[in-house]
Amino acid sequence: MPRIHETIVTTRSPDGRGHLAPMGVRHERGHVLLMPFKPSATLDNILASGRAVLNLTDDVRVFAGCVTGRRDWPTVPLADGSGDRLADSLAHVPLRLARQQDDELRPVLWMLPGEQVIHGPFAGFNRAQAAVIEAAVLVSRLGMLPHDKVEREMAYLQIAIDKTAGAAEAEAWQWLRQAVARHRAGGARGAA
Amino acid sequence: MPRIHETIVTTRSPDGRGHLAPMGVRHERGHVLLMPFKPSATLDNILASGRAVLNLTDDVRVFAGCVTGRRDWPTVPLADGSGDRLADSLAHVPLRLARQQDDELRPVLWMLPGEQVIHGPFAGFNRAQAAVIEAAVLVSRLGMLPHDKVEREMAYLQIAIDKTAGAAEAEAWQWLRQAVARHRAGGARGAA
Repeated sequence: MPRIHETIVTTRSPDGRGHLAPMGVRHERGHVLLMPFKPSATLDNILASGRAVLNLTDDVRVFAGCVTGRRDWPTVPLADGSGDRLADSLAHVPLRLARQQDDELRPVLWMLPGEQVIHGPFAGFNRAQAAVIEAAVLVSRLGMLPHDKVEREMAYLQIAIDKTAGAAEAEAWQWLRQAVARHRAGGARGAA
Repeated sequence: MPRIHETIVTTRSPDGRGHLAPMGVRHERGHVLLMPFKPSATLDNILASGRAVLNLTDDVRVFAGCVTGRRDWPTVPLADGSGDRLADSLAHVPLRLARQQDDELRPVLWMLPGEQVIHGPFAGFNRAQAAVIEAAVLVSRLGMLPHDKVEREMAYLQIAIDKTAGAAEAEAWQWLRQAVARHRAGGARGAA
């Protein structure tokens, strides 16, 4: 069972524009496996440049932000100029495309990791951060899920937010709640 | 809102026996706040020695193990001999008791942190690890919770396990499921 980690992948377009996307990644046989959807800027950028950066951050606002239209997070160029990393992360790993398995929906990109750089310590598990990650997954699938399932799971996740959130988690949670409410309002109008 | 982190606190008894306990901790005004229950070996050991070690680990087997009777996790003495740290952790912080606010149930220990030592990088969020932490909280409260609530929440958490667990998370999950099943069987006998 390969563990899946939720990360932020940064890439650069051929004309130098940075792009940032949340992505679940697996480690397998010395590679990091990325499975970007088709079509996506991440996929285009990696196929064009052969590169990406894996960012390990515990700032859940980046995850909640990306699924609620807030994609403008500060990045820092790598020392060798080969890409950009998320400024606020606990670690990053430069990746180089080794090979790809094409697929109609989600090609698998086998990326070779470079040297891992640690920027800060893991502070321990935070149940509110985990709740934000779960809610971000829900919000990214709002169009496919029944409202009552979303509301039930948000109500469950709210408990960990109330008990264990810091300011960043509370802010991220608010963005996700707003997205759920907006979707619900839009859905109601659509049905009327 | 002070964020609560789920950590492993290691302490030593006056006669040199190591003790290890999962604990939710807060950071406040330059201190790490521990709130061990009364009575507990962690509380006794800290009051006697004035010391503890905060261990930041992403090995969820330690959390699941501690609530299912598996407390024997490898530790390593600190370089200065003042305590022991969990061998498998991403970081640790030595703590020294600054003051305590007594309480009938859960005194608050204000601990001064020493130098934080990083042993490994944060690998990104893993939804299965978060599910194990939630289930460990449930298992620690089995005596207070209705069976159907426990079963409903375990069923929800199972989804993240099935999708994202590695071997360590799968093992921890099995221990927790067994504990729920044992409790349920015991409860049924008790009611008969």
